[in-house]
Amino acid sequence: MTENEAYADLGATTQEAMDIAETSMDIVRTFVPDETLNDRLRQKAVHSTGDIEFQHLIRCQNNPVVSGARAVLDEQPIVTDITMVKAGITGRGHDCPVKKAIGNGAELAAETGMTRTAASVLELDKQGVYEGAIAVVGNAPTGALALADCIENGTRPAAIVATPVGFVKAEESRKRIREIADEYDIPAVTNVGKRGGSGLAAALTNELIHVASDVRDGEVDLTAHE
Amino acid sequence: MTENEAYADLGATTQEAMDIAETSMDIVRTFVPDETLNDRLRQKAVHSTGDIEFQHLIRCQNNPVVSGARAVLDEQPIVTDITMVKAGITGRGHDCPVKKAIGNGAELAAETGMTRTAASVLELDKQGVYEGAIAVVGNAPTGALALADCIENGTRPAAIVATPVGFVKAEESRKRIREIADEYDIPAVTNVGKRGGSGLAAALTNELIHVASDVRDGEVDLTAHE
Repeated sequence: MTENEAYADLGATTQEAMDIAETSMDIVRTFVPDETLNDRLRQKAVHSTGDIEFQHLIRCQNNPVVSGARAVLDEQPIVTDITMVKAGITGRGHDCPVKKAIGNGAELAAETGMTRTAASVLELDKQGVYEGAIAVVGNAPTGALALADCIENGTRPAAIVATPVGFVKAEESRKRIREIADEYDIPAVTNVGKRGGSGLAAALTNELIHVASDVRDGEVDLTAHE
Repeated sequence: MTENEAYADLGATTQEAMDIAETSMDIVRTFVPDETLNDRLRQKAVHSTGDIEFQHLIRCQNNPVVSGARAVLDEQPIVTDITMVKAGITGRGHDCPVKKAIGNGAELAAETGMTRTAASVLELDKQGVYEGAIAVVGNAPTGALALADCIENGTRPAAIVATPVGFVKAEESRKRIREIADEYDIPAVTNVGKRGGSGLAAALTNELIHVASDVRDGEVDLTAHE
């Protein structure tokens, strides 16, 4: 593995950028445990929020790193709610198609008055896009709620990353994702509290990609973590 | 002003989305003062981070809202550091060209080993892109440091939004922006501490656009705030 590949998910390719990325993750690891694969999501959350305490706000269910990294290795689609989250997904270290929901389901949104994101999730689900995919919701609580409905109706994503931020419906939407993940054994990473957002969602998804790279390089054995 | 226009910067167009956006900002305003134009940046920071305490981490220098909103009304370019920040800038309520630095200056980065973002800022500055523009740095500390160098060398952006996140150089880069903003009277909004990021940078920039819309609609008079 070249140094470039090692930091693919941090977006660093030049020497200075790699030095910053390496020092930064070293600092994170002095504050966040490095014992389980799920700890990597906690580390990444701290890294992307700049907040050491954020490690305690992350919730992992049904081994999301194992399942998410497998989906990356299988080149399953990564489906984000909005453009900004899609823009944050690294282009390197994977061959997964990266799609966004927003832009679909405009008719449904106009007819019903539901949010564009919720309508777009329902529309993509009708096309089967979420089946086996990594479903990422970084912004829209109603998108997460719609995704939960799709799962209740039979859809089985490989893993969910859900971190909508804010004061209205955000916490509630992540709580619903956790309930549905429990009920239907869906691997999921979410956070508790009102914080979260697109940057966090992209960072957590990029960590799944990074773990997949480590599997490919023989540095991580997923079967040891099941 | 239609309701759609009122929430243009929150990305809400359907009834449900507008209800969420309106309720959410109402909650924010119960916790954050609404007295000065700069308070709108504090409100927006709280809204986008989901953290009421974030209002205390925002620093405004030289009236960034007045200068930023004027730049929007004058259709000056909005120049972001990375793609993710660009993706977060609303397309509605303004006719500013939105550019990103990343992707420029690849040769300089390869030659010198500096980060791609720093090299891209220096390259765009050589082309005069930052003069009179809204300069937004949401991710890369070295991009903010490069921008400070450009200002020291004579470039005068209309306003700076700088919120790099993380444990290495992020705080330091924002401190340098604040020093340079003081020294050269550049309007700037930054945050203190290790937090920040692309979502915050995009949200603060969108608030400048929102204020410009309010000026256009006769709801805000910038001359009263100078």
